[in-house]
Amino acid sequence: MEAAKDTTSKAAQNALKKAEKAQKMAAAKAEKALKQSSLPVVGGKKEGDIIGITVSKEEDFSAWYQEVVLKAELIEYYTEISGFFILRPNTMFVWNTIKQWFTERIEKLGVEEASFPSFLSQKALEREKDHVEGFAPELAWVTKAGEKDLEVPVAVRPTSEAIMYPYYAKWIRSHRDLPLRLNQWNSVVRWEAKQTTPFLRAREFLWQEGHTAHLTEELAGEEVLQILELYAGVYEQLLAVPVVRGRKTEAEKFAGSLYSTTCEAFVPSNGRGIQGATSHCLGQNFSKMFDVKVEDPAVKGQHRHVFQNSWGLSTRVIGVMIMVHGDDKGLVLPPRIAKIQTILIPVGLTAKMSAEDKEKHLAHLDELFFTLKKAGVRVDVDLREGYSPGYKFNDAELKGIPLRIEFGPRDAAAEQVSFARRDTGEKGTIAIAELATKVPTLLETIQQDMYNKAEATFRSHRLVLTKWEEVVPALDSKNVVIIPNCLVPECEDKMKELTTGQAANEPDTADGKKAPSMGMKSLCIPFEQPEGLVKGETKCLNPECTRLAEQWCMFGRSY
Amino acid sequence: MEAAKDTTSKAAQNALKKAEKAQKMAAAKAEKALKQSSLPVVGGKKEGDIIGITVSKEEDFSAWYQEVVLKAELIEYYTEISGFFILRPNTMFVWNTIKQWFTERIEKLGVEEASFPSFLSQKALEREKDHVEGFAPELAWVTKAGEKDLEVPVAVRPTSEAIMYPYYAKWIRSHRDLPLRLNQWNSVVRWEAKQTTPFLRAREFLWQEGHTAHLTEELAGEEVLQILELYAGVYEQLLAVPVVRGRKTEAEKFAGSLYSTTCEAFVPSNGRGIQGATSHCLGQNFSKMFDVKVEDPAVKGQHRHVFQNSWGLSTRVIGVMIMVHGDDKGLVLPPRIAKIQTILIPVGLTAKMSAEDKEKHLAHLDELFFTLKKAGVRVDVDLREGYSPGYKFNDAELKGIPLRIEFGPRDAAAEQVSFARRDTGEKGTIAIAELATKVPTLLETIQQDMYNKAEATFRSHRLVLTKWEEVVPALDSKNVVIIPNCLVPECEDKMKELTTGQAANEPDTADGKKAPSMGMKSLCIPFEQPEGLVKGETKCLNPECTRLAEQWCMFGRSY
Repeated sequence: MEAAKDTTSKAAQNALKKAEKAQKMAAAKAEKALKQSSLPVVGGKKEGDIIGITVSKEEDFSAWYQEVVLKAELIEYYTEISGFFILRPNTMFVWNTIKQWFTERIEKLGVEEASFPSFLSQKALEREKDHVEGFAPELAWVTKAGEKDLEVPVAVRPTSEAIMYPYYAKWIRSHRDLPLRLNQWNSVVRWEAKQTTPFLRAREFLWQEGHTAHLTEELAGEEVLQILELYAGVYEQLLAVPVVRGRKTEAEKFAGSLYSTTCEAFVPSNGRGIQGATSHCLGQNFSKMFDVKVEDPAVKGQHRHVFQNSWGLSTRVIGVMIMVHGDDKGLVLPPRIAKIQTILIPVGLTAKMSAEDKEKHLAHLDELFFTLKKAGVRVDVDLREGYSPGYKFNDAELKGIPLRIEFGPRDAAAEQVSFARRDTGEKGTIAIAELATKVPTLLETIQQDMYNKAEATFRSHRLVLTKWEEVVPALDSKNVVIIPNCLVPECEDKMKELTTGQAANEPDTADGKKAPSMGMKSLCIPFEQPEGLVKGETKCLNPECTRLAEQWCMFGRSY
Repeated sequence: MEAAKDTTSKAAQNALKKAEKAQKMAAAKAEKALKQSSLPVVGGKKEGDIIGITVSKEEDFSAWYQEVVLKAELIEYYTEISGFFILRPNTMFVWNTIKQWFTERIEKLGVEEASFPSFLSQKALEREKDHVEGFAPELAWVTKAGEKDLEVPVAVRPTSEAIMYPYYAKWIRSHRDLPLRLNQWNSVVRWEAKQTTPFLRAREFLWQEGHTAHLTEELAGEEVLQILELYAGVYEQLLAVPVVRGRKTEAEKFAGSLYSTTCEAFVPSNGRGIQGATSHCLGQNFSKMFDVKVEDPAVKGQHRHVFQNSWGLSTRVIGVMIMVHGDDKGLVLPPRIAKIQTILIPVGLTAKMSAEDKEKHLAHLDELFFTLKKAGVRVDVDLREGYSPGYKFNDAELKGIPLRIEFGPRDAAAEQVSFARRDTGEKGTIAIAELATKVPTLLETIQQDMYNKAEATFRSHRLVLTKWEEVVPALDSKNVVIIPNCLVPECEDKMKELTTGQAANEPDTADGKKAPSMGMKSLCIPFEQPEGLVKGETKCLNPECTRLAEQWCMFGRSY
């Protein structure tokens, strides 16, 4: 069925020409608009497609999540190879916004960008066996090139310590070469056997990995916290997601680190904690393995291994944001990371109206578009023909556009627009004369309100407990708990055991069958410690533990 | 040899504290400066290191090139796996500048960013056998995950047509979904057996790949040229490298394309052409393989396969830039892509000067730094102690910094600075009062002069010939040639054969032994055609060809 054969008649040729011309005119019009702006073109959909979310977030959280990421066009499943996902433009806009925000800030700290190969050799792996052991079952091995077997197989990077540090040893020769701070934006591959979930767990994901070297532990430690604060900033300032900053316990820290710091987020729908991003102080663990050293400024002729950090933030952040803010209508995007912050939709254009009146109204709408554009708002206008305003409202809600502005002849007569907030559903009007100031302010209000709401929720689900018997009921009521703990790994194992399988179903099991509930694990030792723990006196809360408590530790069911 | 054991004495502890303190103060100072600027910190090197280039570009071009990319800290060889390179921060700055410039422009065309997986399935490969055949010998195959063999091996992408197009078929359902334009920035892997060269030929390289779908060939064709013009802009406007725009012959086009357009650059040192970047119209070749179609607007109920383009630009551009502009002192960077455009170096600070005078002079230098910073110049100041001004000059020249500004007490007295241009070596003075205006202007002049010089060189080495006997001598004198040609693939093969092995050595053979000279191949059919070819009359220049010439075609020895 060749297209050329179908278009031999003159009428057919004309119809094609017409379609082509329409597309060219649309392109030219868009280009013209783009000279003054950067209006994205809205793709075509057939009216009648079921575009809304069909599952309730409350009733079946994981089905809801999968529907949202697909229908809001964030993700496509890569059906060719399981466990991989395609990140669509709506996702990449969020990721690039994060990337830019974070890059500006780490550049100010003196971090530079580099790009290392994707593959690591068996030899390098062997030099750091302990660290790599955790990754070994997930390493993807390239064993052939073309038809030929490689002499030595190479692994696709699961993380780049073993790729980068041999060169740190080469480049760092004097303490004047310190600090060395490199970051790369790339993808890493961890061929997980576990169930994958878009954004949260994938066999390949995008991230940044920073790797730095310092003269002393103190200098390294300062940076660890600076970076952690930037990670918290990505969550709180961009994604409107609150996090708890803290240190990982020995049981949960990155195997190769001296200590690990973390931002922990919270998913209210199932009460689970989720590790947001981690900033590790590696101490001298790797510098000794890879012999990264400088002449000791303290003892002439002696050498001193450098202190290293590594820190990473992945596209997981986007999954957390979706889970925290989304609702039964779809995605809810915080304005600061929304590609389209405001959508303009013409309403009230009845069949009775004259063509001239319609045209005049749409010209007026165009003016509003440019007013907002000029005010720095990322605005789009939905002029698709053959779609009702209701359809367009649903579509904008599904995609999470923070602010909808409706504009009909009655609004025009009143010199105002009508708006609806995506986050609260609140409706109101704005005088056209005030559009350029009120809309940016409203978007900032939405951003702040979204954060405040999520923060209040997380706070009310973070229970400080001092009685063991309250722990499991708290977990079952979708809370995480902060309890006095001895911080010993065996104690954590024990508590996980004690909290497994006692309670009702996990709220989001897909098949509705009985399954043992997940045990809790430590999320972090919060930097902000509650009052009331007396060192040398307060006991570890684990009823089977006889040790004294060291600190308050946050535990929960988790991703 | 643990560092901790070496520092037990009090004196040693103090020395360490001092070094740490110095680093902290330096960090604090840098941070303070950074609040107003973004001063990069210059790394430490031992005085006495041979930092200059030891090989002449003229005498041994390939050894020269390898030394420049290493010593200017653009590249590190990844010795763990051959054929891979580490891109250091000096490279990433150039690449990110290009990325930003290009992204801004394609966004205006309506292109959006996406991210597809790195792996492709055997099944997808089989659907487009013809296209993939060329890549087959270079495909890296993942056959194992952890200890387990994969059921079906997957290949690391050499390019993403077969990864992306099944989803184009899914997403494009109506002609209202057209055009679909996606771009991704990623790395691709081609496990070449050939000798690798930093930037020019590597087993993994960074690039962007754009993949778009259109309703008609005409619409696709318009975009092909828009993108080609952007690629030419990267070369000409950013890298100050002239290119010839044209179409590839049938013999040299991308196998899967309907036609390929290209920017061809030129390396004067060996007279070779080099393909700069290509923008392909794929026609319906792939849309038929992957069944990407829409309802034909011309014939109701019939479908029509879409017209597709793909276009890519890689880090190769950086290699071309280095080859064109570099000299025996090292790299020469065009100001627009230089991370440091201007380096300030204090001079004339003699041992006799009082500490107070020195401090005063350096404070004055600081003022100049902030003046330039404020004027939008990417400026750095080289305050490293223990290095002579001469050493610092050499270092700045090696790294290709476009403009060196020297500032000594005598300059201060005359209220001026002394400068030296990297490109021409020209020296002069600028009044301090005029620094903020004169330096940006001078940088733009350098940019323009570098382009003009390279353009004049390329032009004078692009010989329009109408006698076959002049062809080989022209190639031997490091030219490319533009000749009347029939454009038939067999004719190209024949001319390659006829021009192989007749002449003296290639100028850059490393071992000095006799080797057959490389035959010429077609570079492109330039859009800008010389006069004098009469269709139906002028003969193809190949003496063994009996056909008539179709167009002027550019041939040369090439990369």
